[in-house]
Formats: sequence, C-alpha cells, structure tokens
Amino acid sequence: MDIRTIDWKNNKIRIIDQTKLPLKLLYINIDHLEDLWQAIKIMQVRGAPALGAAAGLGMYLGIKDYICSDWGKFSRKLNSVAKYLASSRPTARNLFWGIERILAVASAHKNQPITKIKQAILADAKLIMQEDAFSCRKIGAYGARLFKNNNKVLTICNAGILATIDYGTALGVVYTAVSQGKKVEVFCCETRPLLQGARLTTWELNKQGIDVTLIADNTAAKLMQENQVDMVITGADRIAANGDTANKIGSFNLAVLAKYHNIPFYVAAPKSTFDLAIRDKSGIKIELRKDQEVSSILFKKEIAPKNAKVLNPAFDVIPHQLISGIITDQGVIQMPYLQNIRKILGKNKCG
Amino acid sequence: MDIRTIDWKNNKIRIIDQTKLPLKLLYINIDHLEDLWQAIKIMQVRGAPALGAAAGLGMYLGIKDYICSDWGKFSRKLNSVAKYLASSRPTARNLFWGIERILAVASAHKNQPITKIKQAILADAKLIMQEDAFSCRKIGAYGARLFKNNNKVLTICNAGILATIDYGTALGVVYTAVSQGKKVEVFCCETRPLLQGARLTTWELNKQGIDVTLIADNTAAKLMQENQVDMVITGADRIAANGDTANKIGSFNLAVLAKYHNIPFYVAAPKSTFDLAIRDKSGIKIELRKDQEVSSILFKKEIAPKNAKVLNPAFDVIPHQLISGIITDQGVIQMPYLQNIRKILGKNKCG
Repeated sequence: MDIRTIDWKNNKIRIIDQTKLPLKLLYINIDHLEDLWQAIKIMQVRGAPALGAAAGLGMYLGIKDYICSDWGKFSRKLNSVAKYLASSRPTARNLFWGIERILAVASAHKNQPITKIKQAILADAKLIMQEDAFSCRKIGAYGARLFKNNNKVLTICNAGILATIDYGTALGVVYTAVSQGKKVEVFCCETRPLLQGARLTTWELNKQGIDVTLIADNTAAKLMQENQVDMVITGADRIAANGDTANKIGSFNLAVLAKYHNIPFYVAAPKSTFDLAIRDKSGIKIELRKDQEVSSILFKKEIAPKNAKVLNPAFDVIPHQLISGIITDQGVIQMPYLQNIRKILGKNKCG
Repeated sequence: MDIRTIDWKNNKIRIIDQTKLPLKLLYINIDHLEDLWQAIKIMQVRGAPALGAAAGLGMYLGIKDYICSDWGKFSRKLNSVAKYLASSRPTARNLFWGIERILAVASAHKNQPITKIKQAILADAKLIMQEDAFSCRKIGAYGARLFKNNNKVLTICNAGILATIDYGTALGVVYTAVSQGKKVEVFCCETRPLLQGARLTTWELNKQGIDVTLIADNTAAKLMQENQVDMVITGADRIAANGDTANKIGSFNLAVLAKYHNIPFYVAAPKSTFDLAIRDKSGIKIELRKDQEVSSILFKKEIAPKNAKVLNPAFDVIPHQLISGIITDQGVIQMPYLQNIRKILGKNKCG
C-alpha cells in the first residue's frame, strides 16, 4: 500500500497524525518518549497492531540516549520506560505485547555491551513492523477465502492500514479479496465517539478505490434487516483465551445484531492481540475515556448541556459465542475457541 | 411542566427552535405556511405528537387570510395546504392524522360561512394541543405502573416535552413515575445523526431534575451486559396495525439488544400515532435525509471525506415481536398486537 502508519525515520518515530484525518494527511516526527505517550493517549496513533509497533519503537526511544555501562542500571531504566508506556492506554493487548517483547530481547542480550543491547532493541522494534506487514497479508489471505463475489461487508472503527503498519486486519481481508478480483462493497459505521469509521475507514477505503458507504452507528440493524450485509468483520484489541474479544465500543452491538439476523460475524487479528493469560472477558480492563468525547464532537462543537453526566467506555467485549470465526495469521479459528486458540496459536507463542 | 414546545400566540405559531438546543432556548414565531414547512423539514419542531399539533395549527395558518365565500374554493385551498404540509416529512403518522382531522372538521362545517369554518379549524387545532397534553399524562400514568423503585431506563432520541406539547410520551412515563416518588435513573443514547438524545433529552431531563447519563449509541449493548438497564422505553412515529413501530433510527438496534439481554422494551405513543390502515412494516415509508447529517456534525464540522457515499435513513422499524408492550393513553397494549390494538383503540378512532 502507499501509506505507512508508523515508521522509524532519521532516528525518530514517524506517524500519521490520525486526529487530523480526513481533512489532512499530516506526518509527525516524535523523538521524545513523552510525546509518544501523548500521541498514544490522544490517539494520533491508534489501532492495536500499530500500538504494538509504537511500543517497540517507544522502548528504543526511551533508552537510545541513556548512557550507562552496566546491565542493572540499563535494565531499571528500560523497566521504567516500559511502565510509563504501558500507562498510556490499558486495553489493546499489542501495546503490552510489544513492551514485553522488547524487555525479553534486552534480557536475552544482557551479557553484551549496552550499545549492542540498544542495537538489538532497535532491530527487534523494526522486526515488529516487518512482521506486522507480513502478518496482515496472511490474515488477508485466510480471510479472503470467506468472501464470495459481490459480498457486502459491514465494519466498525478502523482496522485497516491506519490501525497497522501498512495493510490492515479487517480491511486487509477486504483488500486481499478485491485484489483477487472479487467485488466487495463495504458499509462503515461512523463509530462514535471518536468517529474512526467516518474519519479513517471511509478515507482509507476511498483512497484504495473500494466502494464504501458511511452510516450512523444506529443504521446497522436496519441495514441487516434489509439484507444489505453478508458479513460483519471487525478488528480486535484483546482476545482472551476463550475467544472473548475486546474491540471498539459498538462491536458487541453489531455482534448481537448479526446473531439476530443470522449474519456471520468475524474478528480479524494477529497473534499479538491474543492474551492467553486471561481466561475470559472478566479479565479484560476496559478504558474509560473523557466525557468530552461524547458531550462534544472531537472536542469542538458542544452537543450536550455543560453539566451533562456522561459514560464513555472506549471498548466493549464480544462474548465468544457471538463470533463465527477469528481470522488470524495462522488461519481462521472457530469454536470451540478455548481449545482451538491454543491449538492454532500455541500456549507460549503469545502469552 | 414549565416548557411548551408549540403554541398558538398572537395569531402565530410559537415554537421552540430545537436546532438551537442545548446552547440556547429560543422561541420563534411563525406566521407563514412556508416557514412552518421549513421548520418541520429542518426539525426546528419535531417529535410525532408535536407534529400533529403543528399540522393542526399549520392548516389554520394556511387558510386564515384566504378570502373567499364559497365552500368549493375554500375546500380546494384547504386541500392544497394539506398536500403541501404533508410533503414536509413522510414517516410520523401524527402529521397526517392532524391534517386529516382538520379536513374532516372543515368538511363537517361546510354548510356554514367560511369565517365559521375557519373558527372551527382553529378551535380544533387548539383542541389537538389540549388533547395531547391530556393524553401524555394518561400515557404517563399507565406507563409508570411498569416501574419499580430504582429502575434504570434506557431511551433514544427525544420522546419528551420537546416531542409533544408539554409532557412527553416515553419521558412522560418517567416524569409520572418520579412524581409518584419512585427513583428513576435514565440513560440516554445520543442519537446520531441529529443528536436529539444529547441535545434535547439530556437538556430536558436535567432541567426537570431527573438523573440522566448520556452515552454514545454504541454503548447500549455494554450497558445492558452490565445489568445497568431494567427497561428500554422509546417513542414512536408510526405504529402499524400489527404493532410494527417506526421510530428514530437506532430504535430497532435497541430492541434487538434488549431481546438478547432479556430486558423489556416498551414503546409509548398516543392514539394518533397508530395507522391501522397499514397492516405491517412493509407499508411504512421511511424518510431518507441529507448525507450531510452523517458526513458532518449538525452541518458544521466535517467528519468524513468530501466524496463519501452516505446512507441516512431517519427511522427504522421495530418488528412487533420485539416489543414487550405499547403504552398508550388507553392502557398498555400487549401481544397479540393485531387483535389487541383493534380491541383497545377501535378501528375507526384512529384509522
């Protein structure tokens, strides 16, 4: 694809500022850890796989200029960077996965000089990006097999190029199906409160020449009732061992609506989104975000009385019973999830 | 209540301009039919029962200065006013009910002088308002019986004071329950695209001292999953003979979610919302509104690419199977609806 969401350029992290889309495509360079923390917090960079890459690069950013010669000191510094980065957002598994992976790489090199450890960290952070690009294409290939010609697909939020390095998970499946010559029509929920569907997915699909129609989140049930949806595909932020899947608020709504209308509901995610240490949804921490995301539009136009009480969870959890299949880079996992997730992904590869 | 949505004052229609809420409470006076048509179209006045009143007063506005002395000419004029008013919005039954009622009143007075016919029309338009105020209080009384103390209620759009003359249907039930000393907590879906929940319901309930929490439409399923909703109550725009109910887009979503979570789903509406000439949802015309309602926020802030394709139906239809009861001014109607609606409302009273 012609867009790259996150990269390492000139010794800095380069990201697309996603808060500026669709009005402008603006790249920003980040060379302080605190700026990355903020960029994650306010969602200039977002999407679980992209956050995995941000975690890897962020770990390097946090230690690249730290001068010391003994492993003990370096390790303490690295752990403090890890803790800080991990405090930016709680739900997406990939952020923690990226941090843990870098900690493990550093630990594996602990007998080497600090400069070598730093090199190994940067190399692994770059590898995370390469692996994501590859993984998304594998997800695309497995997922595209589920498509027939002229399928109509409903999605929410953005699980595309802008949520990954350069291809997407849920939208990667669409890109692959289209590249195979299948005709695909996408309906996209605008995804209040932060409107990632309207701002990011519609923009991205338009740019790739995919037929996309924007709807208010409220229109999903009517669309299904009128047989305009052959399948729902979403991304994922964290998948428990039993298949329960945290994703953007509204995903659970779509899963219930799809069940009622007998429409298959798929989740697409790389290995790094699975959290086998958590058995089910009760272990998934859901981020609560600022009231102003709901009581105003993108922090500008106020739409509610000043004193309005607001509840603004950023995610919900789709119970595994409502998921027809989880499209991963290792194949499409189906029920029973508790057994099949372990069988396909392996206990130790993604803990 | 201390607010009146629509009234006849100084020979003009006075309405609250609901497009200005919650930022300001602005009354506007309307003395030209074309301005009323526009006010209905852009939803300065909205809500099915309020549109019934607007229709009555609009019919008078359309003929009050028309000078003629024979019934034939007057009747043709009145019919052209009726057609014009009816072209403003297609879905809410009450608009058409109001128009038809005035046509019938005029016809019943056709042997009288034109000035008398005009007086009869104005008197009936005023009566529509009085009846609505009374009817809403009866709906409130029947509905409040369904409430236990500390019930948590989820609603969408605005079926309150601002959708009626001065009390509300779904919110009227809440007001009555609260006036009986019951504690009620309301959750309100913001109701994209036009945000009537955020702008109107939150404002109105705050003003009446009712505990209300605003949520993005996407948060409804999570809220139900966490046992935060004891019942859902919505208004209605048109109810077919079999109980299928057109209401604000997103209502059908809530009905499916409520069914999945085993939560009762009630509709509250006066007789004038029933359309017994239509057997089921296939006969209900759903208004499609401008793309810009979805691709921007309240026609200001753009949130989607300029060339985005949009689908923007203003209503959906809740199949009667998902409705636990219809709270009317004649009592709560339950399944089987086809029989019970006729039994309770009578075939000829609301055709």
